[in-house]
Amino acid sequence: MNSIELEMPGVPENSSRKGGRRPLPESIEGYGEVRAFEGAFAKVGVGAHAHRPRVSRSVRPGQSKLLASIDEALERADLADGKTLSFHHHLRNGDYVLNLVMEAVAKRGVKGLTLAVSSIFPVHEPLVALMDSGVVTGLATNYMSGPVAKAVSQGRLKTPAVMMTHGGRPRAIETGDLKIDIAFIAAPCADAYGNCNGLHGKSACGALGYAVADAQYADVVVAVTDDLVPYPASPAEITQTMVDYVVAVPSIGDPQGIVSGTTRITRDPVGLAIAHKAAQVIEASGLLVDGFSFQTGAGGTSLAVAAELKDMMKTAGIVGSFAAGGITGYLVDMLEEGLFRNLLDVQCFDLRAVQSYRDNPRHLPMDASMYANPFSKGTVVNQLDVMILGATEIDLDFNVNVTTGSDGTIMGGSGGHSDTAAGAKLAMVVTQLVKARLPIVRRHVTTITTPGETVDVLVTDHGIAVNPVRQDLAEALRAAGLEVVAIQDLLAMAESMTGIPDEMTFSDDIVAVVEYRDGTVIDVVRKTK
Amino acid sequence: MNSIELEMPGVPENSSRKGGRRPLPESIEGYGEVRAFEGAFAKVGVGAHAHRPRVSRSVRPGQSKLLASIDEALERADLADGKTLSFHHHLRNGDYVLNLVMEAVAKRGVKGLTLAVSSIFPVHEPLVALMDSGVVTGLATNYMSGPVAKAVSQGRLKTPAVMMTHGGRPRAIETGDLKIDIAFIAAPCADAYGNCNGLHGKSACGALGYAVADAQYADVVVAVTDDLVPYPASPAEITQTMVDYVVAVPSIGDPQGIVSGTTRITRDPVGLAIAHKAAQVIEASGLLVDGFSFQTGAGGTSLAVAAELKDMMKTAGIVGSFAAGGITGYLVDMLEEGLFRNLLDVQCFDLRAVQSYRDNPRHLPMDASMYANPFSKGTVVNQLDVMILGATEIDLDFNVNVTTGSDGTIMGGSGGHSDTAAGAKLAMVVTQLVKARLPIVRRHVTTITTPGETVDVLVTDHGIAVNPVRQDLAEALRAAGLEVVAIQDLLAMAESMTGIPDEMTFSDDIVAVVEYRDGTVIDVVRKTK
Repeated sequence: MNSIELEMPGVPENSSRKGGRRPLPESIEGYGEVRAFEGAFAKVGVGAHAHRPRVSRSVRPGQSKLLASIDEALERADLADGKTLSFHHHLRNGDYVLNLVMEAVAKRGVKGLTLAVSSIFPVHEPLVALMDSGVVTGLATNYMSGPVAKAVSQGRLKTPAVMMTHGGRPRAIETGDLKIDIAFIAAPCADAYGNCNGLHGKSACGALGYAVADAQYADVVVAVTDDLVPYPASPAEITQTMVDYVVAVPSIGDPQGIVSGTTRITRDPVGLAIAHKAAQVIEASGLLVDGFSFQTGAGGTSLAVAAELKDMMKTAGIVGSFAAGGITGYLVDMLEEGLFRNLLDVQCFDLRAVQSYRDNPRHLPMDASMYANPFSKGTVVNQLDVMILGATEIDLDFNVNVTTGSDGTIMGGSGGHSDTAAGAKLAMVVTQLVKARLPIVRRHVTTITTPGETVDVLVTDHGIAVNPVRQDLAEALRAAGLEVVAIQDLLAMAESMTGIPDEMTFSDDIVAVVEYRDGTVIDVVRKTK
Repeated sequence: MNSIELEMPGVPENSSRKGGRRPLPESIEGYGEVRAFEGAFAKVGVGAHAHRPRVSRSVRPGQSKLLASIDEALERADLADGKTLSFHHHLRNGDYVLNLVMEAVAKRGVKGLTLAVSSIFPVHEPLVALMDSGVVTGLATNYMSGPVAKAVSQGRLKTPAVMMTHGGRPRAIETGDLKIDIAFIAAPCADAYGNCNGLHGKSACGALGYAVADAQYADVVVAVTDDLVPYPASPAEITQTMVDYVVAVPSIGDPQGIVSGTTRITRDPVGLAIAHKAAQVIEASGLLVDGFSFQTGAGGTSLAVAAELKDMMKTAGIVGSFAAGGITGYLVDMLEEGLFRNLLDVQCFDLRAVQSYRDNPRHLPMDASMYANPFSKGTVVNQLDVMILGATEIDLDFNVNVTTGSDGTIMGGSGGHSDTAAGAKLAMVVTQLVKARLPIVRRHVTTITTPGETVDVLVTDHGIAVNPVRQDLAEALRAAGLEVVAIQDLLAMAESMTGIPDEMTFSDDIVAVVEYRDGTVIDVVRKTK
């Protein structure tokens, strides 16, 4: 929901707090002063935002950037106690680079490092031991799952982890809120002078959009590749002007874990029914006209929405402007069938997306800052008509939690959730009302990831609820013959099926700070008791 | 010549000064303190170079960037006395944008502006009146010809013009030596959110490499287009994250002046003979092997060298890595025939180059900083094997003048001359010994543009002279059966044909400061008496 023309959302009945506002401490040990969330657009467009100066170690003709080992790169990059190292997650759960680098780092005996990793996956389990031994004491990430997330939840990291968003991360890097000393670029293809792309080589992953801000603003940038090609690597998503050193290693990742062979539409009839209803909501919203723009995740229900849209667009003869985001083969099909003029791609989810990104000039790159940085001169999310979102929990104020499970353990994070919700004209959460016997609609979400003021509508298998600030949308849906219920009714239905869940109890210890995309704190995660 | 492994050049017999060193004032009124040139690589790789902070006026969802007029853009951009406005020269002598903007600027009654224009052409004549009236009092450019150049030479600009190089300009912008308040991007194709390219539209000019640093570092960026397309403009050479405002105008330029229909090889037998000899020098240098890289200008003799090379590469079965620079159809042919793997393009010289840049994924973009900025993490010029250069004058130290005519009037400037000479392994000047009854080889050049320490060899119709610091090259040429003469002998031959030219006399008034690519002052241009 982009709320430029809207008033702040009111407080729905039964709700005990304003949307997106949690009581927060004034400062948090190991994090510092807390600038509390003040509203999705409170900090956007307020004067000009200064980016921190970039530095470059200039390179003479004849000077080589190719080093023999990661260890040599750490030496040249002046690795020392307390520095911040960054990594990106395009190799996903197939990534070898973070573990390779951190193994070399640990051998050098340094302590107190902060890692800025765009997302953390189960493959990064070796980090847990480095947290326990004090090699790593800080963590900033947009998403984490697996053993590292569990260890953070248990309080095994010395300082609270900082949970960012995909747009908040480049904002933090560009402004200097997150200063990176050494960035490591996992490069599926690179030349010895530092031109990198994700298109070629045995570890091809497609777009490298999340790595760009790191490469632009880190003091030292090291490209790590398993496909060193003659100059110039073509094309250059990361250029030689951003890279200080290049290291070739036997393998940067496991192709099986890097991209899915294919992403699949759900076969679950409940998911398909939700998707059908979601598509009806989009149609009723009036946004499905020529120039339509769209984003969805790679989940089975989200893809089912895309499949429904595809049929509707074909039938109506609608040509959309673009689909954005992490890109799947389904969106590639829609591009190739002429249903969208362009794709804007920050990350490829499957092999078909990688192929299309390589071969189709209408399949365009976007870096994370262009995608979603709220302090930039204008993001792609601002141009979105419709965004399909998931939710682990959603409350009566439409606040969404995708950071923690209902037991309080970190199992995700915003990624682009908050960014796309804020930018899109229609931000729609699609979910079953009850999953694994747990109600998704809650009185209060365990953790606020995305503020309710940016969420327009919730579509479940038991009904559609519209955010009260979007009466226009509710009326449009009713006019189209869709039934709209109050979210309180969905809560009642859910609780009638599951019972009222027990209130979780938490200790005072803060294990993670949830930053909204503008750098304010929207919530904290506390250690469970 | 890249002189990493070389000693500083000695002073050849008959030479009265060290290569590239002129006596200079300690400071110049209207310019400031003079940091004197100390050698081509004295400032490169000395610590890390800090870039000035970038700023952005962040844009909310729903907020439009499209303005009704250039005047409105000047209002929004806070135009005021003393500010610096920038323009780029991809529309060359067909450019309407600079004049359109400056007409609107003059109407607002501001004074004392500095213009940073990557190159100035005869079409920009209206600037002369703005210089006379005090609207424009400062000028920074890499090249100028025509009425503006003449007026500057006559001292009609209040402060000395600053002559930069194509690599020096982005260096100055990035470091903050040249702070741009408002940058105007002449965009052959743009969407209303500021994504721009030079590939489509009636004013298509191809690559926009010289505009990138302006768009990245100016406080306010205005795109001016005559082809406003639906979002997203595809591809985006300048992205929406760099652009604040977009203005549509009926025409940004005259297609006849923007690019040549075709660029042509010389038919002059003397030029062809020089080109043949130049090609023999390249072959004898040992650089013409697989992976060979090459740059040349669009002049008739330079293109003739490319044609010679093409035959040699075909015969020997050599596949080069890349050709770079301003790109012509001849280099496109070589790409398409498989003689180079890639082209690296900062600017297209003819329609065939524009077409190839649009359609061939191996025809790659490079911005001016990647091309030639000596303080970057590594430039494309550093990767060049052979560079073919022109000269208006060359002296016994191999210093080259391409800034002024021998009468002292400004008629050019470095462009990429100094940058490519510094980067390339073999920097070769090709020229007739005598042109229009004037000797090209001189005892002293009128203005030093490119220091002799970076020039390896001079090829003329009357013989080949090798820079004394390149004894290895002289030996290789002799071993290949090529006659090498001393540059003093070429001077004697030239003077025997033309007589010794009269020494020019100059006033003390400095009308232009010639900055080397690292920002030091290598020479000044004084008003003629």
